[in-house]
Amino acid sequence: MAGNTYGTLFKLTTFGESHGTAVGGIIDGCPSGLIIDVDFVQAQLNKRRPGQSTIVTPRDEKDRVIFLSGIYEGKTTGAPIAFMVNNEDQQPKDYSHLKDTYRPSHADYTYTAKYGIRDHRGSGRASARETLSRVVAGAIAQLWLKQYKISFNAYVAQIGNIKISKTVNLSDFAEVENNQVRCPHKDTAMQMIALIKATEVEGDTLGGIISCYINGVPPGLGEPVFDKLHAELGKAMLSINAVKGFEYGSGFNAVNMKGSEHNDLMSAENNKVEFLSNHSGGIQGGISNGAPIYFNVAFKPVSSIKIKQSTIDTNNNPVDIQVNGRHDVCVVPRAVPIIEAMAALVIMDFMLLQKAYN
Amino acid sequence: MAGNTYGTLFKLTTFGESHGTAVGGIIDGCPSGLIIDVDFVQAQLNKRRPGQSTIVTPRDEKDRVIFLSGIYEGKTTGAPIAFMVNNEDQQPKDYSHLKDTYRPSHADYTYTAKYGIRDHRGSGRASARETLSRVVAGAIAQLWLKQYKISFNAYVAQIGNIKISKTVNLSDFAEVENNQVRCPHKDTAMQMIALIKATEVEGDTLGGIISCYINGVPPGLGEPVFDKLHAELGKAMLSINAVKGFEYGSGFNAVNMKGSEHNDLMSAENNKVEFLSNHSGGIQGGISNGAPIYFNVAFKPVSSIKIKQSTIDTNNNPVDIQVNGRHDVCVVPRAVPIIEAMAALVIMDFMLLQKAYN
Amino acid sequence: MAGNTYGTLFKLTTFGESHGTAVGGIIDGCPSGLIIDVDFVQAQLNKRRPGQSTIVTPRDEKDRVIFLSGIYEGKTTGAPIAFMVNNEDQQPKDYSHLKDTYRPSHADYTYTAKYGIRDHRGSGRASARETLSRVVAGAIAQLWLKQYKISFNAYVAQIGNIKISKTVNLSDFAEVENNQVRCPHKDTAMQMIALIKATEVEGDTLGGIISCYINGVPPGLGEPVFDKLHAELGKAMLSINAVKGFEYGSGFNAVNMKGSEHNDLMSAENNKVEFLSNHSGGIQGGISNGAPIYFNVAFKPVSSIKIKQSTIDTNNNPVDIQVNGRHDVCVVPRAVPIIEAMAALVIMDFMLLQKAYN
Amino acid sequence: MAGNTYGTLFKLTTFGESHGTAVGGIIDGCPSGLIIDVDFVQAQLNKRRPGQSTIVTPRDEKDRVIFLSGIYEGKTTGAPIAFMVNNEDQQPKDYSHLKDTYRPSHADYTYTAKYGIRDHRGSGRASARETLSRVVAGAIAQLWLKQYKISFNAYVAQIGNIKISKTVNLSDFAEVENNQVRCPHKDTAMQMIALIKATEVEGDTLGGIISCYINGVPPGLGEPVFDKLHAELGKAMLSINAVKGFEYGSGFNAVNMKGSEHNDLMSAENNKVEFLSNHSGGIQGGISNGAPIYFNVAFKPVSSIKIKQSTIDTNNNPVDIQVNGRHDVCVVPRAVPIIEAMAALVIMDFMLLQKAYN
Repeated sequence: MAGNTYGTLFKLTTFGESHGTAVGGIIDGCPSGLIIDVDFVQAQLNKRRPGQSTIVTPRDEKDRVIFLSGIYEGKTTGAPIAFMVNNEDQQPKDYSHLKDTYRPSHADYTYTAKYGIRDHRGSGRASARETLSRVVAGAIAQLWLKQYKISFNAYVAQIGNIKISKTVNLSDFAEVENNQVRCPHKDTAMQMIALIKATEVEGDTLGGIISCYINGVPPGLGEPVFDKLHAELGKAMLSINAVKGFEYGSGFNAVNMKGSEHNDLMSAENNKVEFLSNHSGGIQGGISNGAPIYFNVAFKPVSSIKIKQSTIDTNNNPVDIQVNGRHDVCVVPRAVPIIEAMAALVIMDFMLLQKAYN
Repeated sequence: MAGNTYGTLFKLTTFGESHGTAVGGIIDGCPSGLIIDVDFVQAQLNKRRPGQSTIVTPRDEKDRVIFLSGIYEGKTTGAPIAFMVNNEDQQPKDYSHLKDTYRPSHADYTYTAKYGIRDHRGSGRASARETLSRVVAGAIAQLWLKQYKISFNAYVAQIGNIKISKTVNLSDFAEVENNQVRCPHKDTAMQMIALIKATEVEGDTLGGIISCYINGVPPGLGEPVFDKLHAELGKAMLSINAVKGFEYGSGFNAVNMKGSEHNDLMSAENNKVEFLSNHSGGIQGGISNGAPIYFNVAFKPVSSIKIKQSTIDTNNNPVDIQVNGRHDVCVVPRAVPIIEAMAALVIMDFMLLQKAYN
Repeated sequence: MAGNTYGTLFKLTTFGESHGTAVGGIIDGCPSGLIIDVDFVQAQLNKRRPGQSTIVTPRDEKDRVIFLSGIYEGKTTGAPIAFMVNNEDQQPKDYSHLKDTYRPSHADYTYTAKYGIRDHRGSGRASARETLSRVVAGAIAQLWLKQYKISFNAYVAQIGNIKISKTVNLSDFAEVENNQVRCPHKDTAMQMIALIKATEVEGDTLGGIISCYINGVPPGLGEPVFDKLHAELGKAMLSINAVKGFEYGSGFNAVNMKGSEHNDLMSAENNKVEFLSNHSGGIQGGISNGAPIYFNVAFKPVSSIKIKQSTIDTNNNPVDIQVNGRHDVCVVPRAVPIIEAMAALVIMDFMLLQKAYN
Repeated sequence: MAGNTYGTLFKLTTFGESHGTAVGGIIDGCPSGLIIDVDFVQAQLNKRRPGQSTIVTPRDEKDRVIFLSGIYEGKTTGAPIAFMVNNEDQQPKDYSHLKDTYRPSHADYTYTAKYGIRDHRGSGRASARETLSRVVAGAIAQLWLKQYKISFNAYVAQIGNIKISKTVNLSDFAEVENNQVRCPHKDTAMQMIALIKATEVEGDTLGGIISCYINGVPPGLGEPVFDKLHAELGKAMLSINAVKGFEYGSGFNAVNMKGSEHNDLMSAENNKVEFLSNHSGGIQGGISNGAPIYFNVAFKPVSSIKIKQSTIDTNNNPVDIQVNGRHDVCVVPRAVPIIEAMAALVIMDFMLLQKAYN
């Protein structure tokens, strides 16, 4: 229980530091007979990759996934699926000046407190490069869930103070991959990009919000009490680097509503159960109700900034620090495939559980 | 993995329906030799109890905890601690009219979808009465954590649109138990009570926000990657009935800050590490940094309202429903001990884990 | 992970000391809609009960099971099933002289070493009374498995040096409940009873072997590598008090065979796969092959003897001890329902897992 | 829970098929700061390797372990340790004739029943090559346990009908690596080698028994009830390919003893607790008592024999089969390091657990 495994029946265990040999993982519990569309997996990985555009870090870490086991003649065999992505762009020299310094709001100090030892190169295990493994496993979960017509659509809803002002519809999702910030509203996307560019000049960074819709989940998923569907989604999202908050359905705004406004009334035309509103976000009592599941995830601004800051070194002496390296002004657009991946891991695990008990 | 267990090393498994014989649980993994202060446990339970005041439901369910095992001559033995609270106030007649109706935004429909069968009496297993067991186990965790001077302080920060407007300090916590809404600011508490009374007249209900501070957690707790300290806190909180959102430290507001504003700079006067701000909420890279941990939890308004609503019955026919029974206008004040309990379960589990690895 | 839970999807957590208030447990993960035949559960419990005959201890601990949750109108609801059996025959005075003494080959010394504290009354948590909870949960698993026509037949194959000399067939199982030692061969049973009576006169005790057959398990159960079907059966059996060894199929005798003798050849008359022998004990590569599963479990002689022995007290001073109390000369016949119960827990867990992945 | 993970706090997840790209694993939960002696790890691996001598299969699969993560400047960092061993000697042609045939007493039929698909090359995931990963992880556990002076000594006690006739003492362990069959008694070793050679001529195979001693385990390890120390050791051993039985301490022979003979009397010279015999095998009530732990593991004869046997193909037609390939007559000597590795995984996991709770 050292924290590198996610899931109960569809289990992902990840490994790897940003500047070690490779990052990767083992998926245990993937049903046999699933055709692995490697191109889809790689496409999801590519969305996470740095260097996709002018507004994200220009490192070109090819990030090709290599499968080591569990797939035979293109299909899963039921055996564990091991995979890895080599760290091709290792430049340990970049980080030598960080060896003895705790960067503010990074994991440098806390890892040292926890382990008494730290691989300081590029944040080591705390690097967001670890999320590569999540995207691979999440893509495989998405492939499996396609047979149930379950789909995942995440997008950037806010960057800094620029937010989407109108409702997002299913038809808007097509726009997400058309702009560099993965915002489904083109005009908002333009403003976000302008803000990112302006912030880059300042040497500063930005946070944002990603919204995610899961369509097609049948009623009955999720375990009541401790493993409620939204509790597990929340944990999965909060486990992503830089995430500060999670809300589903009406979320924090529920507080401003009365029961009579918030309750989702039910009807059943032609014997098909419908909800007249969806403040529940598709989940009631911790269990899916068949309506779309949706939630928001808040990201803090990136901690690595080019502005000089005061901090301490490992001997507790004050030092100034300025993080140059190659860092994104805003990682939120690159986190979209990670959100979808984690959502898929959660849903697949609950689908398998539900199959077990029914 | 049917969802009724929380924790890895300090594990709570709960049982019981609101109108069955009893609710209770088994705690497995409590270290031996801990003196059980039964009065403290009961006092925490009493805070959760309905009928504490004029503004909460007047059922007087004495709710005395009975320990069945694992304690010998007042101390834990290392054996599992089983406990139960009898359901003394069973009035199954109250609920017969709900047998065939899906109450809006309750778990009625989803439980039926999941299990094909439903104990309709008082929400059965979905009742918040299940949280009794969490409070008992959380109180025991709090007793154990006292040796490390770790304390838990939750309070009501918002009800409906009434929220605390100024900063809450350690000295304010004493006020929490002085008013019926468990708000540390007396004036705000008065306004909240007034709002609750007005809403009761309307037959409507309210949600709110609870904030929680955990003081004294040493640096190094939490497991990186999937089991980050805040991810586990988030899951624990989201598993509480009616919770819609979780944020820690700067939370959703982080989105409006730039990296240079958000980063918590470090200093070390007299070799004591300090953080000049605490947007991190005491957690960096998923691991505690020694600063106070704090977070917010959003509750939706209670679903059981006295206003007539349209819904469907189990044959998918439209029906109107009006939930009379004895229900709180706002459960948020009663959730304060539950939040503290779940926080204590999380911290104790991570403390034991940290002891294992060091 | 303090050891009081068994299972992954069908999970039993037990509690209780021999002289506390009660023993019992919580079953989490029982599918909904199962009709609970309480008489069957009680009948299995009765087989384990002391005082069944002249050759076992005459305590009459009625041992009635009480269900506290998870069953509504006679059926499981999917919620956790809590149950307990009160300790009606508490006589703590019996044990006061044992408070400061380590009985030889008991858990007295090791519990003290582990926990630094010990409930000395009747072995406390180490008492075989804990197995009551296993029998209850195992009976429920057996009820669920009946729909798949999976049956469990354990019997006493050896007591001391008296062993069954001829092959046991399906038709012999009916005899098991006809004699006090649960041996399917009447003549052998008579000899075993005579041996027990003679040993009782000596104040000494006996061990034995139980064999168990599981019929009807479909091919495909068990997880390869660490959670092989026989590995899990082995763990389950070795977790029963006084067990010293486990073997399945050919077991230790396989060592004396060559590959050409040991291999189970296959044929398929009318497309029905058959094995011409069953040295594999129904399991190959850790996965069931459809043939009957069978295994043997060895029990040591009871440690509580009426003959004086030398030991030490808790201050490490030498003392003599003579365990009078009410103890069985041989517990093996009473362990038959426990073996069946644990086998049922294993098989049900793997059935649920197999449903999840297929 | 698809069976490829072992352990709770020190967790090993393995991957890989015999003829895929590689085999390997991830260790999660290794304490930080441990110096990894790669030579020791490789030496343990070499003991498992085929082609060590004239009596085992002559494949020379170099089997070099490659570490991918979790080790920095020679020490563990607390991050997961991923490792792999490339499959250098892939000869898939060897196995094409097995594609449609179920070899007797192999996992061919059961894997097909379970997964509906099978990687037939060299038994795929069911190959004993998977145990490479166990040896790597076990070696790391042994390195960590050295600080507590806990040592593991396994040896071959029987092959076919040739068994060690006299007691094995600590001083005999040095002989184990001096002969090809890893038997601590030279004369018996010579007889075993002669038997293996004779059996090879027949085209037949042999099983055997490995005994293992664990010295230095402090009192208090193991969790009572389901996770007894010997139950977990039993599961770990039974999870090794070809194992048919497990017994600890007096084992199956306990059945032939009376309580008065079997009980291990205690004394305490100079305040040092001692046991006058060790029929308990160092474990009482599921918890270590400080005496040496010992157990026996029975292996069946290898299923792959060069003698023609009748079986069926995947269409249920009868076929004859003769397994030529390169197979050991007796794998037992090569299993010695695997037994030690699994024992080390068990003990390390319980040590970490015990640290957590004390």
